[in-house]
Amino acid sequence: MRIDIISVLPELLESPFAHSIMKRAQDKGLLEVHVHQLREYTTYKHNQVDDYQFGGGAGMVMMIEPVVNAIEALQAKVQYDEVIFLTPDGETFNQKIANQLSLKGNLLFLCGHYKGIDQRIRDHFITREISIGDFVLSGGELAAAVVVDAIGRLIPGVLNDETSALLDSFQDNLLAPPVYTRPVEYRGWKVPDILLSGDHKKIDEWRHNQSVDRTRERRPDLL
Amino acid sequence: MRIDIISVLPELLESPFAHSIMKRAQDKGLLEVHVHQLREYTTYKHNQVDDYQFGGGAGMVMMIEPVVNAIEALQAKVQYDEVIFLTPDGETFNQKIANQLSLKGNLLFLCGHYKGIDQRIRDHFITREISIGDFVLSGGELAAAVVVDAIGRLIPGVLNDETSALLDSFQDNLLAPPVYTRPVEYRGWKVPDILLSGDHKKIDEWRHNQSVDRTRERRPDLL
Repeated sequence: MRIDIISVLPELLESPFAHSIMKRAQDKGLLEVHVHQLREYTTYKHNQVDDYQFGGGAGMVMMIEPVVNAIEALQAKVQYDEVIFLTPDGETFNQKIANQLSLKGNLLFLCGHYKGIDQRIRDHFITREISIGDFVLSGGELAAAVVVDAIGRLIPGVLNDETSALLDSFQDNLLAPPVYTRPVEYRGWKVPDILLSGDHKKIDEWRHNQSVDRTRERRPDLL
Repeated sequence: MRIDIISVLPELLESPFAHSIMKRAQDKGLLEVHVHQLREYTTYKHNQVDDYQFGGGAGMVMMIEPVVNAIEALQAKVQYDEVIFLTPDGETFNQKIANQLSLKGNLLFLCGHYKGIDQRIRDHFITREISIGDFVLSGGELAAAVVVDAIGRLIPGVLNDETSALLDSFQDNLLAPPVYTRPVEYRGWKVPDILLSGDHKKIDEWRHNQSVDRTRERRPDLL
C-alpha cells in the first residue's frame, strides 16, 4: 500500500511513522508513506497557501489552487483509490472503515489546517471525508497519523502475530476482556484464578463473558 | 497546564509537540509537556516492561510494577487532577471532554501498548479511561497526542484569535459552515454571491443555515 499525505506541516508527521510498527511496515515493504509540503505547490508569493475567508470572520482558509496543484501532480504519478480529506464533519472513522481502507492500493490524504479548506476543493476533488471523532484538532496531521496507523497495522504481515489484531476490541463488536500478566500477586491484588487454571475452554468462556459484560456496561450501543 | 505522558515509545511523540500550535503553547509558558520512558522505571532485567498474558493468547501485556513505579514517582513531584489511560474501551473523547480537561491543572497520561495493560493498573491507579474512537491503534501514543492537541489549543492564549476556537465544529453542537477564500472563481467554480455581498447580517444567517443543513445531513445525532 502507498499512502501520500499533503500537509502544511509535514514536520509534525516525522516521528509517528519513523518508529515501531509503522516503521516495520515500511521496512518490510508492505507500506510506503510519503508526506508532501503543500507550500511546494503554490504559485503565490511567499509560499502563501491560505487567505482570509470571504464574508469575514476569524481564521484563515486554505486556498484551492495550491491544493489542486498538489493533488493533480500526485495523481499524474499515482492512481489513488481515494482522495481523503480529514475533517471534523466527515464520516466518523471506525474499525470497519479501517478494515475497508486496509484493502486499498493507494490512498491520498489531505490535511486541513487553519479554519478549513476552500469548499470547492471538497466539492470537486475529495472522494471521501473522514473524521476521527467529535473534537477539533489544530490540523489534520494527527488525524492522518491515526488513520494511517489504524489501517497500516491491519495490512497482512505488519503485525508479528496476525491473530493479535483479530482479537482486538471492535473486530467482533465487543470490547476486549481484561488482561493480566505476572506477578500473580502485587500489593495483595491477585490475578483471577480462572486464568491460572490451564483450562482453556473455561478461560475462553470467561473472556467472552467479560467482553460481553464490559461492552454492556461501557458501550451498550455496540451490542 | 502540565501534562506528563508515560510511554514505551516516547520517540513517537517527538514531532507532534515540537511544532506549530503545541510548540507555541509551550513557548508561551501556557503548556508543559513531558514524555517519560516507561523502561526507566522497571526493575526487571533487560528493561522488561511486558510479559505473556495469563491464560494464554497472542500479544504481550504491560506489567503492573513498572507502570506503578512510574506513576508513583511522578505523583511524588506533581499533584495530578486525573491519571488517564488511553484505551479503545474508554469513554469516547469529544469536544465537551476536551473543554473540561482544558480547565485542569495537571494531567498524567498512560499510553498502552502491545495487547493492553494489566487490569490491576486500571482498577487501582487510573482515574479516567479515554478512547479517541472505535478503532484500534498500535499504541496509546497517537491517542495521547490527539487528546493533548485538542485540549492544548483550548487553553486561553494558545490560539492567536480566541474566537477561532469558539466557532469550531461541535462547540455549539453544529458542524461548521463551508468556507471560501480567493480566487472568487476557479475553473468556473464560483464563491457563493452572498459571501461577497458585504451584508454581515445575511452572511451570518446563511452560515447558520448552512451549519444546520450540514449537521442535519451528516450528523443528525448532534441535533
